[in-house]
Amino acid sequence: MKDEFQLIEKLLAHAPLQPSGDHGGIRIPAGDDACLLKPLKNPVVTTDTQRNNVHFKLSWQTPEEIGEKAVAAALSDLAASYAIPVSIFVNLAVPPSIKDNTLEAIYRGIKTALVKHNCSLGGGNVSRGRDLSLDMFAVGEGHDDIFPLRSAAKAGFGVYSTGPLGLAAAGLDALKRGDASFQRLISSFKSPSARFDAAGVLLQHRVPCVMDISDGLCGDAGHIAKASGITIKLAVLQEQIDPDLNAYCRKYDLIPENVVLSGGEDYELLFACEPDRYEKVKRDLRGTFQVGECLSYSDEHITGIPSGVASFRHGARSRSAT
Amino acid sequence: MKDEFQLIEKLLAHAPLQPSGDHGGIRIPAGDDACLLKPLKNPVVTTDTQRNNVHFKLSWQTPEEIGEKAVAAALSDLAASYAIPVSIFVNLAVPPSIKDNTLEAIYRGIKTALVKHNCSLGGGNVSRGRDLSLDMFAVGEGHDDIFPLRSAAKAGFGVYSTGPLGLAAAGLDALKRGDASFQRLISSFKSPSARFDAAGVLLQHRVPCVMDISDGLCGDAGHIAKASGITIKLAVLQEQIDPDLNAYCRKYDLIPENVVLSGGEDYELLFACEPDRYEKVKRDLRGTFQVGECLSYSDEHITGIPSGVASFRHGARSRSAT
Repeated sequence: MKDEFQLIEKLLAHAPLQPSGDHGGIRIPAGDDACLLKPLKNPVVTTDTQRNNVHFKLSWQTPEEIGEKAVAAALSDLAASYAIPVSIFVNLAVPPSIKDNTLEAIYRGIKTALVKHNCSLGGGNVSRGRDLSLDMFAVGEGHDDIFPLRSAAKAGFGVYSTGPLGLAAAGLDALKRGDASFQRLISSFKSPSARFDAAGVLLQHRVPCVMDISDGLCGDAGHIAKASGITIKLAVLQEQIDPDLNAYCRKYDLIPENVVLSGGEDYELLFACEPDRYEKVKRDLRGTFQVGECLSYSDEHITGIPSGVASFRHGARSRSAT
Repeated sequence: MKDEFQLIEKLLAHAPLQPSGDHGGIRIPAGDDACLLKPLKNPVVTTDTQRNNVHFKLSWQTPEEIGEKAVAAALSDLAASYAIPVSIFVNLAVPPSIKDNTLEAIYRGIKTALVKHNCSLGGGNVSRGRDLSLDMFAVGEGHDDIFPLRSAAKAGFGVYSTGPLGLAAAGLDALKRGDASFQRLISSFKSPSARFDAAGVLLQHRVPCVMDISDGLCGDAGHIAKASGITIKLAVLQEQIDPDLNAYCRKYDLIPENVVLSGGEDYELLFACEPDRYEKVKRDLRGTFQVGECLSYSDEHITGIPSGVASFRHGARSRSAT
């Protein structure tokens, strides 16, 4: 980093300030002290962090993959809030050992993800630090009359996932073991998708309780149970477990159900609603399945967990208040 | 950090989610995947980073001072954009050596600054890292019909500062030397103010070109000159130099003018406008003075700098694109 201003200019050249004809929601772009966005009726804001050796490893992932995942992880929270991406801001911490071309590659990955979601890059900050890290700040436009809440689950609701769980955790495990024979699992860890498609269906059916599964089913269902003052009884059926995950667990003598319950970073959506509402959701959304049921609170927020299963925590996981 | 979720709850207890009766602009607070803010007609967004041993030192500053300055530095960009603070988001990176009570003290400082500016804490993220750092994301409500721009300076305009410069840089130098006898200078470095008061006056007089001086007069005037396609001739007069800065420079054989030109982190506002508009501003805003003039572009964006003066860069400075 000879000149950080020049570097910022170089990096911004890789990312779309104005991804589409409508200027990506930006009225005054980065370059001034702040960025002026288009008016927002329902401004939805979330933050996320991706740090080397905590959330990713430069030796496991390409810089492009790191940039792309950082955006997906931040936007996933907007999907879980029924919000449309407007703009993202990236604070980069850069150790002296990191070359500019690595940073440019990270920004190419950021750009790929932004273009995919028609989201603009509003700005950001570059500073020196010992850890390479990306602090992401995402701004979205929420829906006019529904904001899904963790606190909206009720006894009698079912609890559902929009897709297979445990794959990313198994992929991370495979990376740690240096086993490259489970590319689909590894790809689940490296290249998650923010499920805006699924969120659209849940919104259409006015599902009131949604969150993304970043910390693992067990931990994230716990957030819903706690916020809603209920008990959630989790029950992962063998037939819901992904075949690749089963194969991986056979190879390494792991219990697939435990990986599903504790494995994080799948970025599927976890939602709760009345069973009859779910029947309609299921018709419009392939791959969704039940993972538990909501009960009146008794003693514990989560039941149905085999002993020894903890919420997913690699050296790494961050905990978010947004 | 035994349990990061518990830690977040403890930290949020120190900061006002809803500082005033109007919920501080927050409709759905942190705790869900994202935060829902009140409608924003002119959403103004900026980011900033404060990192240990780069922007601050735990051995120099109390944790409260660090938290308070982090907010002031982020909000300063909103002031320079004629925006009113709405909500701030804080991503914290925490090394294992940092005790929870240090983090709680940082949040007490954050709270002090938020209360001062009637700004809410929208949420944030806590993750592990080797460097203690605060990544700040600030959201404000801009003015309906004026957004000051770096690109709005014109030949014939004067260039002005809302207050004394170089004090923070001298204070930092005093901290490095371990000289505690210049408390006002040290305090300028540790406890800067975001100049919303001055911004209000500039707005009232519709000054078109404003930015905050975080990187030093020389560098920041350069941003205006470059964005506006002009040359700025800087001229710092001896009588404008703060008496304490003069005294400090005498003690250590420094050239005060050079400290004024290159010293950063004063967080005064730098602005450019017609000289007759400035005459009116000056009547309403004490302490403001001229630092240069705008000329048609010729060869260089900044002239009038003695040789050997560079833009302020301690081991430390971050460069911002917002």
